[in-house]
Amino acid sequence: MAADIRRAIGIDPGTARLGYAVIESRGGNLTLIECGCVTTPATVPMAQRLRRIYNEIVGVIDRLAPAEIAVEELFFAKNVTTAVAVGQARGVALLVAAQRELAVHEYKPMQVKQAVHGYGLATKAQVGEMVRVLLHLDAIPTPDDAADAAAIAICHLNTLHIPLLTPNTPSGRRRE
Amino acid sequence: MAADIRRAIGIDPGTARLGYAVIESRGGNLTLIECGCVTTPATVPMAQRLRRIYNEIVGVIDRLAPAEIAVEELFFAKNVTTAVAVGQARGVALLVAAQRELAVHEYKPMQVKQAVHGYGLATKAQVGEMVRVLLHLDAIPTPDDAADAAAIAICHLNTLHIPLLTPNTPSGRRRE
Repeated sequence: MAADIRRAIGIDPGTARLGYAVIESRGGNLTLIECGCVTTPATVPMAQRLRRIYNEIVGVIDRLAPAEIAVEELFFAKNVTTAVAVGQARGVALLVAAQRELAVHEYKPMQVKQAVHGYGLATKAQVGEMVRVLLHLDAIPTPDDAADAAAIAICHLNTLHIPLLTPNTPSGRRRE
Repeated sequence: MAADIRRAIGIDPGTARLGYAVIESRGGNLTLIECGCVTTPATVPMAQRLRRIYNEIVGVIDRLAPAEIAVEELFFAKNVTTAVAVGQARGVALLVAAQRELAVHEYKPMQVKQAVHGYGLATKAQVGEMVRVLLHLDAIPTPDDAADAAAIAICHLNTLHIPLLTPNTPSGRRRE
């Protein structure tokens, strides 16, 4: 049976720091292709920071060709200003996804923790350690934003990984 | 003296309804070039709605060639979800501004009311009526989002309209 291969990019949106991680799943076995963090200084005007974020995400997607994107839903923010700032970066990421025709999936923070660690209230360190184990890495990806993006991508790939039954497998026998 | 000609686009951002208005100032006299509202239904996935907004703004800017963009700062939102939604549309508008190299200016809601109506706590109807008068229109632009975008553009054009003193004008005499 051919392996079920899927490649997804996880995005942890923010204007100061936007984390991303491209992960491949082969029959449920996960491999980190690349992760990183786009940083833009607060001294640069917002429109130019968003253009920089746009260009970086376009570059990663065009280079690594994920077919799916997973983004965290934002349910909590310190204040309206922070929510707008995160929303702006999130909007740019979703725009690129639509322009490149990626399938878009959104997850709540608790879903991500639940899917990666098995416990919806796990700490950042606990989730980071599970990311390391699931991706067979020597160390937790840095910075935190990249590790968070990896957790989102893992959540997506594991949540939707449903093995296909084919007529050739013992459990796929035709019933009459 | 040649008239001081400037053309600006005002944006009232939102994902469900995004208002825009392109206004030209000739020596301080304002003319509405075009205004409208980009609407995207909630039934369409967010990434596709943002792509639609992006394409519409790009279309207006490429067609009418404003050199400056004015966007309202968001200081108030019902909740984080609303702030993120507005932020997403705002991020897309700012991205287009950066890609098309427009000068970006941001104004607080109270600054817009103050500049258009002369009173920072004016009602929406009062601001709309002043927009109508200042643009020499028979009726207030509709929908509200388009009128709000016009108010933002007027605020920008009037706030920054500083008549230049030239050596040929009586008040421009050189002092020794």
